[in-house]
Amino acid sequence: MFKYEVLKQHSHSSARLGVITTPHGNIETPAFMPVGTQATVKSLSPEELKTCGAQIILGNTYHLYLRPGHEIVQALGGLHRFMNWDKPILTDSGGFQVFSLNKLAKVTEEGVTFKSHIDGSTHIFSPEHAIKVQQALGADIIMTFDEPMPYPAEKSAVEKSLNLSTRWAERCKVAHAKEAQALFGIVQGGMFEDLRTASAQQIVEIDFPGYAIGGLSVGEDIETMHEMAAFTAPLLPRNKPRYLMGVGTPKDLLVCSGMGIDMFDCVMPTRNARNGSMFTSQGKLNIKNNKYRTDASPLDPECDCYTCRNYSRAYLRHLFIADEIFALRLNTLHNIAFYQNWMQKIRRAIREDLPFDFSWTNDPKADSEMSSS
Amino acid sequence: MFKYEVLKQHSHSSARLGVITTPHGNIETPAFMPVGTQATVKSLSPEELKTCGAQIILGNTYHLYLRPGHEIVQALGGLHRFMNWDKPILTDSGGFQVFSLNKLAKVTEEGVTFKSHIDGSTHIFSPEHAIKVQQALGADIIMTFDEPMPYPAEKSAVEKSLNLSTRWAERCKVAHAKEAQALFGIVQGGMFEDLRTASAQQIVEIDFPGYAIGGLSVGEDIETMHEMAAFTAPLLPRNKPRYLMGVGTPKDLLVCSGMGIDMFDCVMPTRNARNGSMFTSQGKLNIKNNKYRTDASPLDPECDCYTCRNYSRAYLRHLFIADEIFALRLNTLHNIAFYQNWMQKIRRAIREDLPFDFSWTNDPKADSEMSSS
Repeated sequence: MFKYEVLKQHSHSSARLGVITTPHGNIETPAFMPVGTQATVKSLSPEELKTCGAQIILGNTYHLYLRPGHEIVQALGGLHRFMNWDKPILTDSGGFQVFSLNKLAKVTEEGVTFKSHIDGSTHIFSPEHAIKVQQALGADIIMTFDEPMPYPAEKSAVEKSLNLSTRWAERCKVAHAKEAQALFGIVQGGMFEDLRTASAQQIVEIDFPGYAIGGLSVGEDIETMHEMAAFTAPLLPRNKPRYLMGVGTPKDLLVCSGMGIDMFDCVMPTRNARNGSMFTSQGKLNIKNNKYRTDASPLDPECDCYTCRNYSRAYLRHLFIADEIFALRLNTLHNIAFYQNWMQKIRRAIREDLPFDFSWTNDPKADSEMSSS
Repeated sequence: MFKYEVLKQHSHSSARLGVITTPHGNIETPAFMPVGTQATVKSLSPEELKTCGAQIILGNTYHLYLRPGHEIVQALGGLHRFMNWDKPILTDSGGFQVFSLNKLAKVTEEGVTFKSHIDGSTHIFSPEHAIKVQQALGADIIMTFDEPMPYPAEKSAVEKSLNLSTRWAERCKVAHAKEAQALFGIVQGGMFEDLRTASAQQIVEIDFPGYAIGGLSVGEDIETMHEMAAFTAPLLPRNKPRYLMGVGTPKDLLVCSGMGIDMFDCVMPTRNARNGSMFTSQGKLNIKNNKYRTDASPLDPECDCYTCRNYSRAYLRHLFIADEIFALRLNTLHNIAFYQNWMQKIRRAIREDLPFDFSWTNDPKADSEMSSS
């Protein structure tokens, strides 16, 4: 049921137009996946996500395991049915959250012991358990369980960790063997080229239907992130989808698509929206700003999303200042639509073989502003 | 542009089926108006309100005057355009909030001095100013500015207050004279029948296109509220719409429709929804309850709203417990749909001249549970 096909190679970069086939439909790539941590992309309905152009969303295994529990989701027909989303879903393995939300997580060869951020209860995640939980959730694409490293980290520690992650990836593949879901491997190796090479060789050797680049966008500067992604992408097979985890700004998506990355996810559009920080063709727009108090124009005059078609900046500012729930909906809808429109523009450029010489904004300061928000 | 017509008189009660014509369309009565205090019915889009069957919504003059300001709303095309709602709107006069949100409000013959609940700034509302603000907002139906009395209150104080409210109602009519909006008068008089009679005579004498019964549902018991509404309704002209302000539970809407009341508003369905307290044909349902953790059935098996068609109680409980915004949307949508379906059932009974011997629920305890929540 899982298939990836390259439709067109960009002559101006390493970007490729592709299509991923899953049991819940196709995904045109390069694609951006909105994050639906707790079985909902915060504030939006599934229908709204579709009108924004979202083709696939991401669910967080760590969160859903703790609440409501993977067995409950399974008993209710799986994550698709539970949340009323009939298109593809990707779940991460929980590895990242186990560490980022639990500073005292304890790692052994067997797995990770950690405490719930909700009630402090103790849990153990092993590669086998992470697969079992993801099988219960029933996403179309699932991820191997690995150990993300903090940044910066000593090279020896990164090396030790990536070797553990390789052994865990092997165990994940064994645990997963009989299932129809596509299991992606994850390349680690921190900011060290030789370790990225070693990790990529080991993970590709295990053989997965798709590969992710993990351990980036974890505190390093943007240039380093771009360099490491550019170094790692070509180490991965051309005939498999490549997923850059946790990235990024619109500019990151363009630059990294040009490296041959096919899939992205990031909380930036949704989280920024809930803080009133909006992506527009004119750059970053902070809807709280007093200057929008009487502004009758739409958030982004070049956008045709529901928010921009029907509401003024003045109304959006009013709702936000008044702490209204509808503000979060309208803002989130626009930022997701903006990201999806942007990916569509990237895909069109590849299809028509046009150079990646365009920008998401006419504000030259926008990229640095957005990446620091 | 404003017209009220009785289409059918119920033979089993004083209820009547009617239709109100406004510049933004018709309203079938008896009607329930969802409350959109700050230019939004909390969490819902205008399109969702329409699919729920809402024909008219209520806006709060006090809130919109303070934020974003009536002049801004006017400059942006009025409240309908501002909030993207093209059906009828009713605004209250601000009188109720001036007192309920400002314990130190100071009343003189001229008007009321009060402090903003947002920033503590001092403001003065007079009858003329309340009309001016409502004209700027541009609702189809606007209300006279009156002085609501606390409950319980001394008869002499209530009498003095209702006389002041009558003088203010006269000033509102003069201030309003040239406008196309329909200005409704408000009958006060607390829980005293002779004062209700006096107030009704004075207000009807001024002559308005519709009349509200104010000063009920302010702390008195349900029986007293029903008695006072039943006493007051027949004091108002049969050929004008009657609006019972701030009421109530589904049972209240049925009982008071039977007294010949045509319009209702209440925060109960929306506020309860945000607290997880749901109206269903099986009675009150608290979605937080642990027993719904694995419940695959819809909130209300007899409801055909978007929430009930697509989501399980288990999912709704999960979203609510996880503090997800989507929980508030789905809950609010259902409660509003429930209220609108209930009004439709009441209107159908009048149309078909069936007795009001039905209930909104098969749970005999539901009414007392709901009225105390």
